Order: sequence, then C-alpha cells, then structure tokens
Amino acid sequence: MKKYKVGILGATGAVGAEMIKILAQRNFPISELVPMASANSAGKTLPYSDRTFTIVEAKPEAFEGLDIVLGAAENDIAEKFAPAIKQAGAVFIDNSSAFRLCDDVPLVIPEINGEDIFTHKGIIANPNCTTIVTLMAVKAISDISPIETMVVSSYQATSGAGIAGPAELLAQSKAIAEDKPIPAAKVFQYQIAYNVIPQIGGFGDNGYSSEEMKLQNEGRKIMHLPELKVTCTCVRVPVIRSHSVSVQLITKEKVTPLEAKQAIAAFPGCVLEDDTTQSIYPMPLLTSDQDLIFVGRIREDLTNPRGLALWSCGDQIRKGAATNAVQIAERLIGGAK
Amino acid sequence: MKKYKVGILGATGAVGAEMIKILAQRNFPISELVPMASANSAGKTLPYSDRTFTIVEAKPEAFEGLDIVLGAAENDIAEKFAPAIKQAGAVFIDNSSAFRLCDDVPLVIPEINGEDIFTHKGIIANPNCTTIVTLMAVKAISDISPIETMVVSSYQATSGAGIAGPAELLAQSKAIAEDKPIPAAKVFQYQIAYNVIPQIGGFGDNGYSSEEMKLQNEGRKIMHLPELKVTCTCVRVPVIRSHSVSVQLITKEKVTPLEAKQAIAAFPGCVLEDDTTQSIYPMPLLTSDQDLIFVGRIREDLTNPRGLALWSCGDQIRKGAATNAVQIAERLIGGAK
Repeated sequence: MKKYKVGILGATGAVGAEMIKILAQRNFPISELVPMASANSAGKTLPYSDRTFTIVEAKPEAFEGLDIVLGAAENDIAEKFAPAIKQAGAVFIDNSSAFRLCDDVPLVIPEINGEDIFTHKGIIANPNCTTIVTLMAVKAISDISPIETMVVSSYQATSGAGIAGPAELLAQSKAIAEDKPIPAAKVFQYQIAYNVIPQIGGFGDNGYSSEEMKLQNEGRKIMHLPELKVTCTCVRVPVIRSHSVSVQLITKEKVTPLEAKQAIAAFPGCVLEDDTTQSIYPMPLLTSDQDLIFVGRIREDLTNPRGLALWSCGDQIRKGAATNAVQIAERLIGGAK
Repeated sequence: MKKYKVGILGATGAVGAEMIKILAQRNFPISELVPMASANSAGKTLPYSDRTFTIVEAKPEAFEGLDIVLGAAENDIAEKFAPAIKQAGAVFIDNSSAFRLCDDVPLVIPEINGEDIFTHKGIIANPNCTTIVTLMAVKAISDISPIETMVVSSYQATSGAGIAGPAELLAQSKAIAEDKPIPAAKVFQYQIAYNVIPQIGGFGDNGYSSEEMKLQNEGRKIMHLPELKVTCTCVRVPVIRSHSVSVQLITKEKVTPLEAKQAIAAFPGCVLEDDTTQSIYPMPLLTSDQDLIFVGRIREDLTNPRGLALWSCGDQIRKGAATNAVQIAERLIGGAK
C-alpha cells in the first residue's frame, strides 16, 4: 500500500492538533508526518501513533517532497504558502476560508460532494464548521426535494475560536464561582460566561457577519444549489465544544417529517437522535469528541406547508474541521469512483 | 389617591419575589400587601419598602377584601384559587398559562394591547416570557405592516425555570471548575453547564414543545393577528438571567431595516441597540435586572424580499413576567383611555 508524506500547516492550533490525532485514529497511510508551525514552536516534538515527529518552521522549502498538506492556519498563512505548496507538487487541503469560493477550488464535504475533489488544481477547500454541521443534517432532505431556503440560528461553542476560547470561558466561570474579579474578554468581544454573543466574525454592509454569510455562499457551492437562499444568525454560547443549529428549511416539493427522518437515519455520517417522548435530541455534550452529526427535533414547519424544522449538533473541531479534511485526503488517495 | 389591597399568590418564587420588588420600585399605591404561599412559608415576614408584611397561607378565605391578586404560581394553583379570587371581588392578574387562551380572559402586554384589559371578567392573563420578549421587539414592525409569519429560535436563561434553575447551573459550573463530581440534573432534563438543551416544557404530537407553541398561540391573541404563523424552537442555554431570541419575520408589505429601526427606537419599552460597526447588539448580560427590551441585528432577510431578521434580549423575570403584571395592574387602576 502506498504511503504518503503529509504536512500539517498550523500543527499547534486546535484544528491542527486534532488533524494529527485523527490521522492516527483513522490509520491514514503515512510514511512521514511534517507538523509545521511558526518559528516559536519549531523544534518541539509531537507524538504520533508510536512515533515522534518534530515541528518544523513553516516556510516555502518545508513543503518540498510532501504529497499532501492539511491546512489548519488562518487565511493569511494559507494564502502565503499556497504557491509554495503547489510548487512542491503537494495537494493543499485547506481549512481556512481563503480559497473556498474560488472557481477552481473544490469545496467539499465528502458525504455530499466527494466527487468534486477530483476537479482540483492543487487546492481543495474544507468548509466552515457551521456549514458542515448544517449541511450534513439537511443534505438527505435536499436529496428528496431540493432545499430552496433555510433560516438558521446557531449556538456555537467557544472552541470554534481556537484553544484560547474554552480557556477564556472556563477562567471566567471559575472566577465567578470563587467570587473573584472576572478576567477581561480577550478572545470574545464580551464576557462569554453566562452570556451569549450574537457576533462571530466581522460584519458586512448588509448587517450579516462573515460567519453568517458562509452558510449561504458555501452551501450553494457544496450542494450544487446556486439559487439557495439562507438567512443565518450566528451566536456564540458558553459551551466548550460542539456547535448546534436550529434550522427551518423550505423544499421545492413537500417532504414529510417521516420521510426526512428515514433519509437522515440512512445518510452516512448522520445519527437520527429524535424521540421527543423520551427527551432524546441532539445536545453538544453528546456530540463532543466524535465524528457523527446528530439530528433531531424534526417536525413540520408551521409557517409553510413545504417547510421542515430540525435541530442538529456536531463536533465542529472534528467533523466540522479536522475529520472532514482527513476524509477529503482519504478520498483523494482512494481515487475517483 | 386611592390605595389598593394587593395579594401575591406564590410570593416566595422567583417571579413572586420580583413582583413585590417591582411594586415597591414603581411605587404602586398599596394600602395593604398580602404575600401568599404554601403553609410551609406562612408566618415568615417579607420587607416591603419601609414596612414588613407577613406571608399567609394561600387559601380561599385569604383573598377576602383584596382588590388585586398578582398570580406567580403554577397552573394548578392558579386554577384552584381563581374561583375564590373572583368570589372575593378581586381582579386576578395571573402569570400562569392556565387562562391565557380562554376567550373571556384578556392576554395583555400593556404597550401592545393595553385596552384589552378593560374587557376582563375577573381574570387578566400575563403572557409567556419568551412571547413578551419577542412581541415587544416585533410589534413596532407589525404596526407598519402586519407580520404574517415568524421563525424564532430562543436562547432561554436558567432562571426561566425558577430560583432552582440558576442554582443548578452555578453548582454544576463550580463542580467542573473544582474538578469535583458534577451534581446531577434535577431542574433540567440534562446537565445545563456548558451545554444547551432544546426542550422547554413537554412535547405535543406535532413535535413542538408547549413553550414553542405559546409564541404562535399567544402572539395571535395579543397582536390581534388570528392568522399569524410561528415556527419556534425553544432552547435552554447556560445563562443566569434574560432570554434572547433570533427572529426572522415576513410582513404583508415590505418593511425596510431603516423603517424597522426607527419604529423600534420609538416604541415604548424598547431600546434600539444596533450598531454592528461598534459591536453593539443586545446580550443577556446587558438586559438583566431591568425592564427594557433591547433589539438589534436588524437586517434584511435573505430568503424573502418581505422578510427581516433581528435579535432581541430582555429580562424574562421582569418585563417577561413580574413587571408586565404590575404594568397591567397600573393600567387597570388608571382606567380605560
């Protein structure tokens, strides 16, 4: 079996660390792992399976000889190194939003549009975490009848802001429990402990945040639904891990709740967690540190006869980021069907 | 100036205690205050302004001679004592959901349908807390053009479940901070610390919780919009106090965001808190322990040209319950305009 030289750009962040964990868990065929980070972290070692790899400084020469680079860095870093990665002949599977909407870059959730991978020209983009949690939940419905519109409100975990997010939440909560001064907000705009903040990313002229526009823009591309319309409200909540979404959607033709439930239960990567008589529904505590998207509270929308409402939760660091990127790599090396 | 004998049914609960505080704060013309609770609490004293009142056991004779009874008890208690309150000739302003949808009981938010108070036949109902926070935010828009549909997702504070709600949240958070065993969930279905729970109330056959149906059913009555359609998803979040709602609404004729903002800013009881360039928007931490409903994130809906999206927060114990009831009493004694 062929083995691959895999680089991780941004190996010390929340997503990068999770990518390394998941590569090992899924037994990805690796001959060499090259974790890359800023000069500050270079030289430190990282355990991987029964081996140890040393973090190298991310610079153009570092990509030479690699087959695949998984990107877990911010947009500016992704943009800076993309030419060198291409130059080195590696495929760049990038989790930043820098290239997601570029025409020549496939944007992929493998369960939804895995075949798009093979149109790549050196870069494959990993979608936004809330986009992944939402689309995984609704794709099975859209396969019955295409989704025309969605109204989505999110409940996003602090770890979506990186390792420092949960640390800030826990430090503030601890100070409140001990009746000490509450540490000032640094990661979030305001205190997140016992609060919710309706801002993720910066705001555009239309009043929507960058995070809120991603679901429509990325959803259109991934679902191959160029007319899809989405109104999204993204809200940070004092949760450690796993994003939740409340979704109302309208399909071209009516889909019943029963049809939706059956389709979701059969959809790869989804778990139907839906029995209101037993208080069974998705919750972030249930979906943390695993790869499946839980979907429940499926019911008829009361505002439109072609509408459905549902609730979904998923670990945004795993399926919402790291696992999805590793799945893309697996599909890439497996070849087109 | 005439003064009134006022009873508080359920004086020791979160809402009852707040009612007593608010009667004093607003200098309600009281000649006598009769706090009522179960036999367990009878005999204890409560401070009120510069006086002290003794809690009496709630029983039919206790209502004799009262002018107004503010109800802060559960449905069964409200139903049990309503006949005795009527018999005593007092007006029952009840915060339970027992009578809200009865034809001969006005359901009132004074800023919205205050005149309905004067159709009462002994009982006036106080709406659900999430209904009040949402309708206060959207009524000014509906006055420009009637709202046809709303899709609402709530972020409801633990104090909506009574005094024991925040206590459970804080105890669980403290245990997690101290790395001790997490106290079991008693008030909520599951652990609420660092979690969100998409269930408030029991579920009906249509898959909606009782809390979720209130917004449509009560909204129709309060807004005098019998055709109003609402899809609601009610979610408990780890917040101490103040509910938040994410609202998408569709009006009969298009209302622009600017028109909506101007109307909301001018609406009594509302504060426009809306400047995304400065990260100014409502948050539960801002709206706790005061009476105004904050509204922001007002923008065009992207799914419907007649749609708007907005975000609103309000203290559900005050304007969402106790203050609204006291405002009804004030309007009642002030007489019809």
